[in-house]
Amino acid sequence: MSIPTGANTSVIIRLELQKEKASFGSIATTISESGGDIVAIDVVRTDKHATVRDITVNVFDAKHTDLIVELVGKLDGVRVAHVSDQTFLLHLGGKIETNPKFPIKNRDDLSRVYTPGVARICTAIAEKPALAHSLTIKRNTVAVVSDGSAVLGLGNIGPEAAMPVMEGKAMLFKQLAGVDAFPICLATQDTDEIVRIVKSLSPTFGGINLEDISAPRCFEIEQRLIEELDIPVFHDDQHGTAVVILAGLLNALKLTGKQLADCKIVVCGLGAAGTACAKMLIAAGAVNIVGVDRHGAIQRGGTYDNPGWQWFAEHTNPHGETGSLPNVIRGADVFIGVSGPGVLKAHDVRNMAADPIVFAMANPTPEILPEEAEPYVRVMATGRSDYPNQINNVLCFPGMFRGLLDCRASRVTEEMKLAAAKAIASVVEGDELNEYYIIPTVFNHEVAERVRSAVVAAAYESGVARKKREKSN
Amino acid sequence: MSIPTGANTSVIIRLELQKEKASFGSIATTISESGGDIVAIDVVRTDKHATVRDITVNVFDAKHTDLIVELVGKLDGVRVAHVSDQTFLLHLGGKIETNPKFPIKNRDDLSRVYTPGVARICTAIAEKPALAHSLTIKRNTVAVVSDGSAVLGLGNIGPEAAMPVMEGKAMLFKQLAGVDAFPICLATQDTDEIVRIVKSLSPTFGGINLEDISAPRCFEIEQRLIEELDIPVFHDDQHGTAVVILAGLLNALKLTGKQLADCKIVVCGLGAAGTACAKMLIAAGAVNIVGVDRHGAIQRGGTYDNPGWQWFAEHTNPHGETGSLPNVIRGADVFIGVSGPGVLKAHDVRNMAADPIVFAMANPTPEILPEEAEPYVRVMATGRSDYPNQINNVLCFPGMFRGLLDCRASRVTEEMKLAAAKAIASVVEGDELNEYYIIPTVFNHEVAERVRSAVVAAAYESGVARKKREKSN
Repeated sequence: MSIPTGANTSVIIRLELQKEKASFGSIATTISESGGDIVAIDVVRTDKHATVRDITVNVFDAKHTDLIVELVGKLDGVRVAHVSDQTFLLHLGGKIETNPKFPIKNRDDLSRVYTPGVARICTAIAEKPALAHSLTIKRNTVAVVSDGSAVLGLGNIGPEAAMPVMEGKAMLFKQLAGVDAFPICLATQDTDEIVRIVKSLSPTFGGINLEDISAPRCFEIEQRLIEELDIPVFHDDQHGTAVVILAGLLNALKLTGKQLADCKIVVCGLGAAGTACAKMLIAAGAVNIVGVDRHGAIQRGGTYDNPGWQWFAEHTNPHGETGSLPNVIRGADVFIGVSGPGVLKAHDVRNMAADPIVFAMANPTPEILPEEAEPYVRVMATGRSDYPNQINNVLCFPGMFRGLLDCRASRVTEEMKLAAAKAIASVVEGDELNEYYIIPTVFNHEVAERVRSAVVAAAYESGVARKKREKSN
Repeated sequence: MSIPTGANTSVIIRLELQKEKASFGSIATTISESGGDIVAIDVVRTDKHATVRDITVNVFDAKHTDLIVELVGKLDGVRVAHVSDQTFLLHLGGKIETNPKFPIKNRDDLSRVYTPGVARICTAIAEKPALAHSLTIKRNTVAVVSDGSAVLGLGNIGPEAAMPVMEGKAMLFKQLAGVDAFPICLATQDTDEIVRIVKSLSPTFGGINLEDISAPRCFEIEQRLIEELDIPVFHDDQHGTAVVILAGLLNALKLTGKQLADCKIVVCGLGAAGTACAKMLIAAGAVNIVGVDRHGAIQRGGTYDNPGWQWFAEHTNPHGETGSLPNVIRGADVFIGVSGPGVLKAHDVRNMAADPIVFAMANPTPEILPEEAEPYVRVMATGRSDYPNQINNVLCFPGMFRGLLDCRASRVTEEMKLAAAKAIASVVEGDELNEYYIIPTVFNHEVAERVRSAVVAAAYESGVARKKREKSN
């Protein structure tokens, strides 16, 4: 998976120069002649014979950086000690920190927050464990738990390599919804072990966000934790995606004037996201869903080893449609792709019903590129930020957990997820709604608050909220 | 363990008043007549019939609060809804938070710290796992791990109730040494399980501070983690205490002009702290140590079930002293108590050698009160902040982990602990040193930095530092 740095980023090149041999003029010339733009020069240290300098250079992309580094490295008396681009620099030392909420200014403060005074708080919680929800960070803290087995599009890269994603997620939790989130990347991929560990960690946390755990283990891990823990557990890759897709679809249907119950919906890709998405669509009122992947459509009443596929066999494809995607896509109102690049062709879209709605979510390359679908599609959405209508989980998880924590919910219910989807959709007002704006952007400040209050209301209705409605200490 | 709030704290009493019946005048009178001092009145909410007010009152202690609450509660039309004192208020929602190090201001920022740009960082770490030490929070983050089995003097109160202590510890880590520390309180007290869990958590952290885990499990848990992890593991209750006791003892000996190697040292209380303390004293050059607890002195060459006692049998009591504390204390130069209240009597101190040094560390009530020992003792120290010479772990762990992280140490060595003890002792300059000032206070800003650099130097000498001495990105 190669990701462009984006045009005109900047890199810092650390050079060790032998004073007698190296000429800074030739370095500057080499960089500018190869299209680099020197914006800063810092002397790191210097002695009689050598000097070390950081050269900040504006470049086009990673390839361009490699070219410049190669040419400069060939110059006499010059050694390239290190190259760091902005993305790497942003990650030095990690992206989050743990801070005291207030300073310990004197011995009196110390005796309250630590021994001996803290013992009174400990005793109070020991006598009434529910107090942990108000007297410890449990009240506002979520664990972002991954085993590094299915990270982004990168696959099974392990727990250390998964950390930057979980840290980024923790940043978004705090910035968008004021939730304290802490990344926990586990050095095990054993289902039982992960369940045991998360259960043992639960006293510290008010909620568990499961992340980037591969299917089918993610289903069992989430299900067992939901049953065995009294705090909410939410596998974002399944339910976050499903919630945001439903939000976009609700607005897309408004544009086409169709009802969800009347639509033929083809879900392509039957992993964690596809299954969760189909379940949500049914919970929202969809009737005619056809699940398909590279082996073709899942048959109603069929028998399958994969538990996800078996669910499709029991709940979808009421008209017994058969064959591969090009067959089942005929006459479909909605295509939802959570599969792979390029699996949907332009003529497939042409074969859909009037006003086709296409959500092509495969990352980074969608099932069909918007420019290919353009002539035939009515509403198009992808997972990418460089096209209109980005379906992004960031629209869901911060407000979802803000709501769960605020009402001290014991679990996530279908009602909450539906309410969250409607809340996200509602941010796009009727007069703003159009083919290129069916879903708000991740920087829309209304989203998290609307999701939060929708989730809280749903929690009280479904009776899983454990906090008295009237706010009090 | 009852801990006084300390004279003149303040409490907030929330009252629900029936407008027709209740008179605020009578409330104010009742409070002031019973010795309370009203400092603030806030109206929380009010309607036609009732009003809710928060009354902030200065009081002497918890008993005084109870008296006032009882009297006010008896008044007509008054209901006491809630009473919270400052210590409880400080703990609302917990004492630490997790924050982004910088804001995500726009889509460009988002694409760097989260998908898609973050994938490049993940890939880099996947290819070279050591990069986790520089590109994730592992570089500066320590787990404070407890199972809640031996919290302060409170005993086995469980993981939820242990959280406030671990949060307080995290505050001190950050404020005193800039270390990000996160509390992990585990809902298991099974040794194997705790070892497995901490190993699975290790990818996220740069070090492990074990805390308030009961003996003898704490020995095995620490030992196995040290052997199986490549990040430092430090059980503060053992080694932090031992380091600070040695620091104090080194300065006390300067005052008496005695050499550690010549001293007879009685260690009373053979739990985690006592054993670690005796081991450190031997590492520092002590020769004649006698370990004693309620069953009497541990015999050289004896056989004991308790692994800690067995260690004493193999390494202490060279002169084969026998009997209980009153016997073995005769002629001792140093008494170190990590046992229980009042076990050392004034006549025991009188029976010690000239210039007796007494460290009575039992909390909250020491082995002997300074006022009792006063007539006979030369240098006296306790674990309490309300007497001179407080032996407090806070002097050790922040600087210790700061140093461990700064040089990316793979483990804690004896050399580091000795260096840390000497560094703490060195903060008390020769001309400042006297019987009532042998150890710096926890607010002395020099302590953490001196410990840090001593630990870093020792790490490079013992070859456990994995960071190149020359600082670089």
